[in-house]
Amino acid sequence: MAHTAIDVIRTKRDGGRLTGPQIDWVVDAYTRGEVAEEQMSALAMAILLRGMDADETGRWTAAMVASGNTLDLEGVRRPTADKHSTGGVGDKITLALTPLVATCGVAVPQLSGRGLGHTGGTLDKLESIPGWRAGLSVGEIRERLDEAGAVVCAATEDLAPADRKLYALRDVTGTVESVPLIASSIMSKKVAEGAQSLVLDVKCGSGAFMTHVDRARELAEALVSIGTANGLNTSALLTPMSTPLGRSVGNAVEVAEAIEVLRGEGPADVVELTVALAREMLAQAGVDADPARVLASGRAYETWCRMITAQGGDVDAPLPRAAHTHTVVAPESGVLATLDAYAVGVAAWRLGAGRGRKEDPVRHGAGVLCHAKPGERVEQGQPLLELLADDPADFPQALEALSDAVEVSDVEVTSAPVVLERIGA
Amino acid sequence: MAHTAIDVIRTKRDGGRLTGPQIDWVVDAYTRGEVAEEQMSALAMAILLRGMDADETGRWTAAMVASGNTLDLEGVRRPTADKHSTGGVGDKITLALTPLVATCGVAVPQLSGRGLGHTGGTLDKLESIPGWRAGLSVGEIRERLDEAGAVVCAATEDLAPADRKLYALRDVTGTVESVPLIASSIMSKKVAEGAQSLVLDVKCGSGAFMTHVDRARELAEALVSIGTANGLNTSALLTPMSTPLGRSVGNAVEVAEAIEVLRGEGPADVVELTVALAREMLAQAGVDADPARVLASGRAYETWCRMITAQGGDVDAPLPRAAHTHTVVAPESGVLATLDAYAVGVAAWRLGAGRGRKEDPVRHGAGVLCHAKPGERVEQGQPLLELLADDPADFPQALEALSDAVEVSDVEVTSAPVVLERIGA
Repeated sequence: MAHTAIDVIRTKRDGGRLTGPQIDWVVDAYTRGEVAEEQMSALAMAILLRGMDADETGRWTAAMVASGNTLDLEGVRRPTADKHSTGGVGDKITLALTPLVATCGVAVPQLSGRGLGHTGGTLDKLESIPGWRAGLSVGEIRERLDEAGAVVCAATEDLAPADRKLYALRDVTGTVESVPLIASSIMSKKVAEGAQSLVLDVKCGSGAFMTHVDRARELAEALVSIGTANGLNTSALLTPMSTPLGRSVGNAVEVAEAIEVLRGEGPADVVELTVALAREMLAQAGVDADPARVLASGRAYETWCRMITAQGGDVDAPLPRAAHTHTVVAPESGVLATLDAYAVGVAAWRLGAGRGRKEDPVRHGAGVLCHAKPGERVEQGQPLLELLADDPADFPQALEALSDAVEVSDVEVTSAPVVLERIGA
Repeated sequence: MAHTAIDVIRTKRDGGRLTGPQIDWVVDAYTRGEVAEEQMSALAMAILLRGMDADETGRWTAAMVASGNTLDLEGVRRPTADKHSTGGVGDKITLALTPLVATCGVAVPQLSGRGLGHTGGTLDKLESIPGWRAGLSVGEIRERLDEAGAVVCAATEDLAPADRKLYALRDVTGTVESVPLIASSIMSKKVAEGAQSLVLDVKCGSGAFMTHVDRARELAEALVSIGTANGLNTSALLTPMSTPLGRSVGNAVEVAEAIEVLRGEGPADVVELTVALAREMLAQAGVDADPARVLASGRAYETWCRMITAQGGDVDAPLPRAAHTHTVVAPESGVLATLDAYAVGVAAWRLGAGRGRKEDPVRHGAGVLCHAKPGERVEQGQPLLELLADDPADFPQALEALSDAVEVSDVEVTSAPVVLERIGA
C-alpha cells in the first residue's frame, strides 16, 4: 500500500501505533523532501502529545540512521566504545575520559557537537587549544583510532541527516520536549557512529536538560532500549547536575581542569565520574583494566598529547585567558549549601563562553571558576566565584544570573553521590 | 510582551488557554508570513488534540475576520440575512431559498463556494445555467442586494484571507477534524460577509461532514456561540443527511429541481426544508411573512429570474443534459428502507458532477436522479436511480460506489423529520 503523510499523521493523531513501514516511509520521504516541513511538524506534535512506544522509537531511530551513512569501524584493531552525555554545566568529562579509556585498550570515537545556551560543547572547549581543528575525514578518524585509540572530532555531515533536518524543525515548532524524539535524535547519531558499545551519562538537576530524576530515568530507559534494539551494547548512568561538575565552567578553563585530571590531580567529583564512566565503558567492551591506576600512572596524559597533536593542537602553548576578572565573595560564613548549576551555566554563557545562536562565536578564555563546592565551609568575604570575561561590560548580566545561585547554611550539608543509578543489562 | 510562535505553540501544547493577544498575534503573523507554515501546523495539531474553549474560538474567528476586509452592507435598504449549510448530497436549498427570502423583504447575500469530493458546490450548480457568471465586485453585490434583494456569487478574495491560508494548510497536515477550527473557518467567512443575522443548516448522517448527531450538535453549538460572540444574530437547524435531499444530485439537475420548488412544485423534503430555513431567517431578521404562501404565489420565481439574469444567466435557455444514462432498478419488491446519501454523492462525483482536485472542471449535465425515496413502495425491476454521464466509461465506477446504497425491506419504514433540532437563542 502506498503511504501518504496524512495517513501517517492521522494514525498518530488518533492515538494509534505507527507501523514499521509507515515509520521507514515517513522518515525517508521527509529526508527527500517529499513529506513537507509542515507535515512533519504536525506529526512531531502528534508524537509529542500521543507518545511512541519502545518499538516505534527503536524503528524511528533506525530509519534516521538509514537516512545517511554509517561510520565503518570494522577495520579498527580494538574493541570500540562510545560515550554520550545529555549535557551539563562544567561537563568536561569527555576530554579526560577518551584518552583514559583508549590507554586501557579500547578505541573511543567521540563525534561531538558545539554548545548552545547554558551547556557547553566539547568541540568549543578543545578549540581553545591553539592549532586544534575539529574536522576530520572518515579515513582520518579510522587512522586516529588505530594509532592513538582516541579521537574527538566533529560529526561528519552524512551521519543521520534526517535527524539534523528534524532537529532544526523541532527547534522552531515547540516539539523539542518529547522523550521518544529526544531519545531517537541522540541515538540515531550514536548508532551511525558505529561503535560496538555505548555508555550514556544522563544528567538530572537544574543544569541538565531533564531537571527531575523521573524524567531523566524515563529518558535513560528510552535510550538504553533504543540502543539495545539497534544492536548496540548500551547502558546508562544517572548522574546529578544541580551544581557544576568540578571547579571550572567555560572552554580553556575546562581544558586546563581536564589536563589536571589526566595528570592524576583535579577535583574529586570529576575524577570519580571519569573513572566510573571508564569502568562502565571497559566492562561493556569486555576489557579488564583499572582506569584509576592508569590515570595515576600518567599514561593517559601521553595519549591525550598524541590525540591533540594529531589534530594540529599545540599541547605546550599556553591556553587563552580572559582579560578581565570579577570576584564574587561569600555573603556570610557557614557551609556552602547551594551553588546552582543552571545559574552558573547562564553566567558563563553571558560572559561569552557559550552562544545564543548557532552562528555565534564563543570566547575561549571566558567562564567561571568555582573556588568552593557545596558541602565545603566558607568564611564571609572569601572568594566563591571568579568570573572571566574579555569584555567587562559582560559582568553585570552574568552577576544578575547569579543573584540566587549561592546559599550558605549554618548546618552540615551532605553532597550528592557522583552516580545516582545505573540503567542497563 | 513580544509574542513568539514557540510560546503560543507551547501554551496550547501543554493544555493551556491561549490569551486574546496571543490569538490576535499568531493569526496576524501567520497571514503576514512571519509565523511559518510548519509552526502553524504544529499549533493546529495542538489545537486539534487539546481543544479551544468558546472564548478562544470566538477570538480566533475575529482574528481571521480582521486578517482581511469585511463586506460593507450598511447602505443596503433592507434587513440582511445569511444562510450556510455544512454540505450534503443533493443540497440545492440555497438556490430556491435565496430568492424566496428576498421576495419576503430581506436582503440575502450568498457568497458561496465550489464543491470538492462527494458534496456539490452552489457555484458549480449555477454555472450550469448558460451565461451565468459567479464573480461580482463588492459594488455589484451591493447593487444586486438593493435591486433584487438576492445575490449568489463567489466570495471575494479579500474576505478572511487567514482562513484561506489556514484551510489549505490543514488540508495537507491532518488537522481538518477539529471542531473549533472547522467552526472558526466557517464563521470567519460568514462574519466577514457582514449580514445582520445567520441561519446555519448543520447536517448529520452518512452524506454529511459530521456523521453522528452528537458531533453535529457540538459543531452547531460552536458555530452559534462564535456568531453570537461576534455580534451576529445566529441560530442553527440540525437536519438529517442520511439520504439525498430531493430527487436530483448533480448540477443542472439540481437547478431544475430548485426551479420546480420556486414554481410551487418540487419534492416535499426540499420544499419543507426551504420553508423551515426561510421562516428561521425571516424570524431572525424580524420580518413577518409566510414563505410557504410566497412560494405558492410564484413571486419567488420572478425574483430568481431577475437574480440569474443580472449575472448574465439565460433563464430561457435549456440546461445542459448528459449524453448517456444508465438505470438502476429495484432488486426486489418492498419498501425502500435505505438510499445512502454518501454512496449517491460519490456516484455523482464519479459521473463527473463533482471534482477530486480544486483545479478539476465539473460536468454540468452529470449526476444521479432518484426515482424513489426512502419510505416509498417499490416493485422489483422498477427504475430506482438514473445515472447521467457524458462518458459511459464513468458508469462502472459509479455503480461500484452504489453497490451497498440501496436496501429494500418488507416492513414499514418511517422517514426522518426534515429538521431534527433547533439550536440558538
